[in-house]
Amino acid sequence: MTTIRRFETFDWPLVWPILHATFEAGDTYAFEPQSSEAEMRRAWIELPAATYVACADDGRILGTYYIKPNQPGLGSHVCNCGYVVAADAQGQGIASAMCEHSQREARALGFRAMQFNLVVSTNTRAIRLWQRLGYAIVGTLPGAFRHPRLGYVDALVMYKSLVD
Amino acid sequence: MTTIRRFETFDWPLVWPILHATFEAGDTYAFEPQSSEAEMRRAWIELPAATYVACADDGRILGTYYIKPNQPGLGSHVCNCGYVVAADAQGQGIASAMCEHSQREARALGFRAMQFNLVVSTNTRAIRLWQRLGYAIVGTLPGAFRHPRLGYVDALVMYKSLVD
Repeated sequence: MTTIRRFETFDWPLVWPILHATFEAGDTYAFEPQSSEAEMRRAWIELPAATYVACADDGRILGTYYIKPNQPGLGSHVCNCGYVVAADAQGQGIASAMCEHSQREARALGFRAMQFNLVVSTNTRAIRLWQRLGYAIVGTLPGAFRHPRLGYVDALVMYKSLVD
Repeated sequence: MTTIRRFETFDWPLVWPILHATFEAGDTYAFEPQSSEAEMRRAWIELPAATYVACADDGRILGTYYIKPNQPGLGSHVCNCGYVVAADAQGQGIASAMCEHSQREARALGFRAMQFNLVVSTNTRAIRLWQRLGYAIVGTLPGAFRHPRLGYVDALVMYKSLVD
């Protein structure tokens, strides 16, 4: 059973190794692969409006996500989320559970839509998942992501309305 | 004759009224219309990689633009620019001159492409100008901009490669 709850300060020592491994791999997020722990904390915890963790029954952290306005002022009704799943918890539906959770949280926080700004086109598993969860590919950015092995690859903009 | 040069600290008293009027109108930029002078300065001068001003022969400031990486790390080869023209200098080709200038500067700074994240769909004059200057509409974000008179309107993602 996976529980998703708000991030607490004491979670950080378990969260940052998961972020570090993901950013360092450099194939899914634009975050600088050599980001320091302080930079990761700022990007994932301090800047967002809220951060969450997905926990196993034994307290292990399986994944984490943040939610924040994607733009200031007149664009702040659209949110942006980022999701990371621990390497040893892949394939268990954690990303899907976090994404569903984030849509409920986004609505509760008053957001009207959710936008992913830079979905790496080679990350086909994520793209299929977001599509299954109702996100549409609304744009393609040619060569917008510098992949560590593949060089410049396209990135997708994905979007889902959260209102009827 | 219009000269475009780097922003200097002494320009601010002439720049911020132009930004204030533009943001307050709320029909082209997401920036909070009631942004304080300090917030505007942070967004336009401090956060970007560089800011420029377009000046008339008599020293009046006709427009201003910034340039910055649109994403961190593995997306930082794509830049983002924002352009503002003074109300009394509209229709004189200032936006066009600044945009051409920004493409040269972007290349000189090593950027490989330029992206506009939130072009308000009702701002047809700007859209036509960007298209004429080689920017393609690569995406449409449904209802992503809260227009002060028209309500939620679509926003466009526009993109131009700066390399051959």
